[in-house]
Amino acid sequence: MSKDIGITVTKNDDFSEWYTQVVLKAELADYAPVKGFIVLRPDGYSIWESIKSALDEKFKKEGIRNGFLPVLIPESLLSKEKKHFAGFNPEAFWVTHSGENEIGDRLALRPTSETLAYSMYSKWIKSWRDLPLKINFWNTALRAEIKATKPFIRNSEFLWQEGHTVHTTAEEAEKEVLKILEIYKNIVENELAIPVITGRKSEKEKFVGAVYTTTMESLMPDGKALQMGTSHFLGQNFSKPFDVKYSDKDNVENYAWQTSWGVSWRLIGGMIMVHGDNKGLVLPPKVSPIQVVIVPIYYSENDSKKVTDKANEIEKALLDKKIRVHLDKRNELTPGFKFHDWELKGIPLRIEIGPKDIEKNKVVIATRHNREKTDLAIDKISDNIIEILQKIQKEMFDEAKKILQDKSIRIEDYTKFKEELEKGGFLYAPWCGDENCEEKIKDETGAEIRVIPFDDKNEKQKCIICGNESTSTPIFARGY
Amino acid sequence: MSKDIGITVTKNDDFSEWYTQVVLKAELADYAPVKGFIVLRPDGYSIWESIKSALDEKFKKEGIRNGFLPVLIPESLLSKEKKHFAGFNPEAFWVTHSGENEIGDRLALRPTSETLAYSMYSKWIKSWRDLPLKINFWNTALRAEIKATKPFIRNSEFLWQEGHTVHTTAEEAEKEVLKILEIYKNIVENELAIPVITGRKSEKEKFVGAVYTTTMESLMPDGKALQMGTSHFLGQNFSKPFDVKYSDKDNVENYAWQTSWGVSWRLIGGMIMVHGDNKGLVLPPKVSPIQVVIVPIYYSENDSKKVTDKANEIEKALLDKKIRVHLDKRNELTPGFKFHDWELKGIPLRIEIGPKDIEKNKVVIATRHNREKTDLAIDKISDNIIEILQKIQKEMFDEAKKILQDKSIRIEDYTKFKEELEKGGFLYAPWCGDENCEEKIKDETGAEIRVIPFDDKNEKQKCIICGNESTSTPIFARGY
Repeated sequence: MSKDIGITVTKNDDFSEWYTQVVLKAELADYAPVKGFIVLRPDGYSIWESIKSALDEKFKKEGIRNGFLPVLIPESLLSKEKKHFAGFNPEAFWVTHSGENEIGDRLALRPTSETLAYSMYSKWIKSWRDLPLKINFWNTALRAEIKATKPFIRNSEFLWQEGHTVHTTAEEAEKEVLKILEIYKNIVENELAIPVITGRKSEKEKFVGAVYTTTMESLMPDGKALQMGTSHFLGQNFSKPFDVKYSDKDNVENYAWQTSWGVSWRLIGGMIMVHGDNKGLVLPPKVSPIQVVIVPIYYSENDSKKVTDKANEIEKALLDKKIRVHLDKRNELTPGFKFHDWELKGIPLRIEIGPKDIEKNKVVIATRHNREKTDLAIDKISDNIIEILQKIQKEMFDEAKKILQDKSIRIEDYTKFKEELEKGGFLYAPWCGDENCEEKIKDETGAEIRVIPFDDKNEKQKCIICGNESTSTPIFARGY
Repeated sequence: MSKDIGITVTKNDDFSEWYTQVVLKAELADYAPVKGFIVLRPDGYSIWESIKSALDEKFKKEGIRNGFLPVLIPESLLSKEKKHFAGFNPEAFWVTHSGENEIGDRLALRPTSETLAYSMYSKWIKSWRDLPLKINFWNTALRAEIKATKPFIRNSEFLWQEGHTVHTTAEEAEKEVLKILEIYKNIVENELAIPVITGRKSEKEKFVGAVYTTTMESLMPDGKALQMGTSHFLGQNFSKPFDVKYSDKDNVENYAWQTSWGVSWRLIGGMIMVHGDNKGLVLPPKVSPIQVVIVPIYYSENDSKKVTDKANEIEKALLDKKIRVHLDKRNELTPGFKFHDWELKGIPLRIEIGPKDIEKNKVVIATRHNREKTDLAIDKISDNIIEILQKIQKEMFDEAKKILQDKSIRIEDYTKFKEELEKGGFLYAPWCGDENCEEKIKDETGAEIRVIPFDDKNEKQKCIICGNESTSTPIFARGY
C-alpha cells in the first residue's frame, strides 16, 4: 500500500493529525467547500444510519414520535428567551435575502429548535389530554464555529437529533430527562462500545435556558473528555415565554414542564478516537457498514475458479444469517493490498481463503481490533460468525472501559491535580460548589467540570481550591 | 363532533379550502412562523417515514448508498453551470452573516445539490474503478416561493431525496435514469395507491442543466396535473464545468456521464388530494401510521371490563401479525366522537366492539375508503386482517386508476381542447415538437406539456396548433 493511501503518523505521536487522516483516508467524510463544514461519504453516513436506527427504535418504544421543523427561525422568535438567545446569537448564520429581496425580520439557521418547536407546541396543546407530548426531530443544527474545527467533533453544521417533550408535572419531566440519558448511555456503550460516565453538568456548564443539564462524558485516548450527549430539564423556563399551557382536569390553566435532549454525529468522532489504531479505523461490528469482508487469494487461473466458488458460498451463507458481508472481487489488486485497505477502513472481521485453505477445509479469520489471525473450519463459519462478532464487540468495550478506569483518579491536592492533568484523564476532585473555584481551575489549568456523576459519593472533603467543605466530587478534565 | 374539528367544506365545492382543512385538521402539518414554510406533525412525518423506508430499500438494492451534504453552497460554486444558476438564483435564500461577521462569498441555502455534490465527486473519482458512483441524499431543499404556497405541494423548504450518479458511458447513465423512474412509479402506485403516467418532459419543461428529464405525472381530482418525481439525464453538462473525470483502462481521461433524480413530500400532497373525501383524510394502509384502530363501545361499568378485555386481546393478536394497531382507550369521549375522529385522520380500518358483538362472537369492521361496515367473526380477525388491508389498498388504487382513465381523452381539435380543458383532465393532443406551438397553448389556455408518455404511439397526425405533422402526442394539462 503506497504511503499516501495509508496513515502516515502514529496515534501516539500526533493524535490530531492521525484522527484527520483516519477520517479522510477511511473515506468517512471530506471537507466541504465552506470552511468548517464536512460532507459524509457513504461509509460515514452508514455508521450514522446505524446509530440513528438504534436510537429511533428506543425512542419509539418510549412513545416518542418524529416530526419535522424548518431550518429557518425568525430573529424575533429566537430572541424570546433572553439567555438562550445570548448563548446562540454569536454563532448564528443569518439569512437576509431571498432572491433579490431583503428580508425584514432576519432568519437564523436553526442552532437548536427550542424556540420554534415551542411556538408550535403552544398552538397544539390545549388540555391535559394532549400531554405528555413527545416529539423528536432528526435534522442538522448550524452554529458558526470560531474555534478550530474537526470533522464530527466540531463543525458548523452537524447531523443530530433533538427531542422536545412536554409534561403536566415537573416530576414526570425529570423522569423523562433521565430515561433519555439512559437510552443514550445504552446505545453508546452497546453499539459504539464506548463507556461513558453520566451525571449532571455544573450551573456554569449547563445548557443556556435549562434548569439543569444531565450529560454523558467519555474519555478520549489523548486524555481529553468528550461530551457525548445531553438531556436537559427546562422546567418552565420556556413554557412561560412561549406560552406552553394546558388546562387541567379542573379546567385550570397551567404552564407545562419541558425537556430537551440531543446527540449528534460527534458520537462517530468519539468512536474513531477511542477504537482506531495506527493502521486506521477500527469499527465495532454493530455499526460497521461491512461486518465481514471475504478476501479470496489465488495466483493462477485454475485456483481462481475454485477459490471464488467457495468464497461465493461463504458469502451466501453469511447473507442468510443477515450478516453485512462483502466479497472483495477486485481482480486488479493483490491480497496484500486488500488486507491493508480493509484494515484502514476498520472492517471488524476478515476471512482469507486460498487454495491451501480449501484443501484443509478451513479459512483464516483476522480480527481487526486485536489484529489476530486464527483458523476456522469452513463448515463452522456460518454457525460461529454471530458469536465471533459479539465477542469482538465485547472485547472492544472491555478494552475501552479498562483504559477509562486506568485514567480515572481521585485527587485532593491542587498541585497534584495540575501534574496529573498534564497526563490527561478524568480527575475526580472535591469541590465546594462555588462557581469562583470552578472558574479559577478553568482559568489556571484549562480543566472544566465535565460531569458531577450520579453515583457521586461525596464524603465531605475539602474543596481542592478554597478548602471549604465539598458538596460534590465532580470529574474535571480538559475537553473538546 | 363540533364543526370546527371536522371539515366544513366539501371536496367538490371548494377543493383548495378542503385540502388545507384536511392537512391541518388531520394534524399532518401546520404553518411555521415564516410564510411559505410548514412543520410536520408526527402523523405527517410518519407517512414520510413510510415512503422513505420503501424507497430507501429499493435504492440500496440498486447499489445506491446514502451520504450527507451541507445545506450551504457558496455562490461561486452554485454559479458554475450558468443555465442552472439562472434557474435557481431568483428563488435562492442567501446567508450573508455569521454572528456579527459579514461573509465574503455569499452562501446559498441548497436549492438542489448538483453543484456541491459534483465538486466533491470530482475529488473522489479518479479511475474507472471508482464508477459507477451512486449516492443519494435525504435532506431538504430551499426555494423561496413567490407563488401562493400550499402545504406539501409548494413550500419554501421541502423534505426530499436527491440522487446523483456517475457513469463511464452515456448508455449506462440513461439506463439508470429509467431504473430510478421505475422505482418511483412502483412506490407511488403500490404504497400511495396513485396511478402515474411516465415519460419525458419537453425541452421547455426539463430541469435546468439536464440533457433531458423523465417524469411521472398524476392527475388530481380538480383536473390539474401534479408532477410526482423526476429523473434527469445530465449527459456531460455538469461533468465538464465541475471536472468530473475518470481514467479508463487505457489510462485516458474522460468526462463522466451523470444522472440526478428526486421525489419530495409532494407525494403526500398528491395522496391527500387523490384519496381524501368530505369526512377528511383517507390513507392507504401501507403508509398509514395506524392501520387498524379499535374502538370499544360500552355504557356501563360492567360492560367496560368485558369489552376492554376483548379489545386488548384483539389488539395483541394484531400486534403479533405486525399490524400497526391502536386501541382507543380514551374514557372521556363517546364512541361516535371517536368514529369521526379516526375518519378525519383517515385510518383505513376501524374495529368496533360492544357487549352485543361479544355475545355474537363478532366485531364490526368499518373500512374508511368506501365507508362500508360489515361483521367479522372474532376468531377470524387475526387471519383475515392482512388480506383485508391488501384489498383496501388495491381498491383505492383501482378507483384512482378508473378516474384517471375517465379523465384522459384524445383530442385533435384546438377548440375542443379549450372546452375540455375547462373540465380538467389529461388531454392527449398531437404536437409538431415546435416550442412556439407549446408556448401558444400555454399562453392562451394555461395548459402545459406535462409528459410525453413512453408508450406514445404517435400516428403522424396534425399538430393541434399549426397543423404540421405531429412528432408526438403529449399529455397537456394545467398543473400545480
